[in-house]
Amino acid sequence: MWTKSITPRFGDIDGLRHINNCMLPIWFETAREPLFRLFHPHYDLNEEWRLIMARISVDFVNQMRLRAEVEIRTFIGKLGCSSFTVYQEAWQDGRLGAKGEAVVVHYDFPNGKSLPIPDPVRNELEKHLVDEEKFHHG
Amino acid sequence: MWTKSITPRFGDIDGLRHINNCMLPIWFETAREPLFRLFHPHYDLNEEWRLIMARISVDFVNQMRLRAEVEIRTFIGKLGCSSFTVYQEAWQDGRLGAKGEAVVVHYDFPNGKSLPIPDPVRNELEKHLVDEEKFHHG
Amino acid sequence: MWTKSITPRFGDIDGLRHINNCMLPIWFETAREPLFRLFHPHYDLNEEWRLIMARISVDFVNQMRLRAEVEIRTFIGKLGCSSFTVYQEAWQDGRLGAKGEAVVVHYDFPNGKSLPIPDPVRNELEKHLVDEEKFHHG
Amino acid sequence: MWTKSITPRFGDIDGLRHINNCMLPIWFETAREPLFRLFHPHYDLNEEWRLIMARISVDFVNQMRLRAEVEIRTFIGKLGCSSFTVYQEAWQDGRLGAKGEAVVVHYDFPNGKSLPIPDPVRNELEKHLVDEEKFHHG
Repeated sequence: MWTKSITPRFGDIDGLRHINNCMLPIWFETAREPLFRLFHPHYDLNEEWRLIMARISVDFVNQMRLRAEVEIRTFIGKLGCSSFTVYQEAWQDGRLGAKGEAVVVHYDFPNGKSLPIPDPVRNELEKHLVDEEKFHHG
Repeated sequence: MWTKSITPRFGDIDGLRHINNCMLPIWFETAREPLFRLFHPHYDLNEEWRLIMARISVDFVNQMRLRAEVEIRTFIGKLGCSSFTVYQEAWQDGRLGAKGEAVVVHYDFPNGKSLPIPDPVRNELEKHLVDEEKFHHG
Repeated sequence: MWTKSITPRFGDIDGLRHINNCMLPIWFETAREPLFRLFHPHYDLNEEWRLIMARISVDFVNQMRLRAEVEIRTFIGKLGCSSFTVYQEAWQDGRLGAKGEAVVVHYDFPNGKSLPIPDPVRNELEKHLVDEEKFHHG
Repeated sequence: MWTKSITPRFGDIDGLRHINNCMLPIWFETAREPLFRLFHPHYDLNEEWRLIMARISVDFVNQMRLRAEVEIRTFIGKLGCSSFTVYQEAWQDGRLGAKGEAVVVHYDFPNGKSLPIPDPVRNELEKHLVDEEKFHHG
């Protein structure tokens, strides 16, 4: 599990005075940084970048508010040959606010095809594997 | 089907010079306005608001770019007693860029429970129903 | 004058149910597109890009709300050798909501120095010059 | 001086692979939290809120990048009867990236008029006063 603390920004709440739903994909993306760095240690977004998002989803569990830090917990769910699923949770004040999944593909942009995940990276990802069953039903 | 044209904002692209994935939930939310107005004609976000998002997902199909308008097409997929699923597509230059789903619940915030969708609103929503099968496999 | 219509996005309002102040720089930037296209007709943000922002400011005049389109009006204020100042206004429901200024420099990134504005571009910019006195005191 | 560390979000950079200019007002706003809390200890954005922004400006000094934390330093510049000016700086990797000013007014929304800053709050603000001359020319 990786953890990342997020300070909600003033503009992250909406007219209902809750965190706007659209912030969650942004926060989850921010919290995937250590995972991106396994593939791209320098975290430079340039022509060398080889990760592409195939799908994201967010389940909204409890409303979150402006005035407290949010902890994002990031796990690896499924780990395939060239793609993997990231499981994430957003916690605030000891309550689960949202759960997210993101399907990430190791991808060769110039040739438009997926690439196997290199073994050293795979070994690191495996350390963060979570029991999928538990994530969905816990 | 409702349609909404979105002008990508300068900051909506990321370091890979594609539309940042996190913009799609924002664009889809913006395009749900006519649907929100069926429930709340004045579109005021205040204590009277009775809609809550349960879940969103986005499938990324083709990368989108800064320099052309994006058309968001919005349909109703499933229509339940108190909730419904919105299907949405983002098109740019004649290509499908992304597909999204959003589960919306008609909700009584003060009492914390779901509310039946009023019949006049249901009748309007039904006019925008799309064949679910076609949406997923078309 | 260039004009651009902006649909406020659901998340553009804040907890006070007004347009969040930080949206104005984003909207003004979006409305500068035709101006950027004078320099870069294809509007590709890549190594060829030669415009840099030196300064922005926004005066908040009247609060704006979610439920109506905002018209951004864009003028050229001062026009120097290698830089120019953009004046912008945001109008909603016939009321001025905010005024903005942006200082833009024609800039050679690789060599780190400003570049003269080419004459054909200058001629186009001049067509949009506004009386500075009037903008500030009108 | 108050300090706040900001983690640039993946989508905070633009197609030029620098921090998008429009992020600075957002970061500066986020970093004003301790200052807002002097007026509103619970930091609830509701009908009781009595602060309004009159003006913001940002000077862009050096380009900032995705891959390092940004430290926002926040000072009080001018302190008037009912308003004050916030001076802010964004630092990354030991370099000044941007400077900002924000004019904030203590404001009675229902009656539409400014309010004197209460003495206990004024005393706190004074502790963070910076030499204006130094800020502008340092």
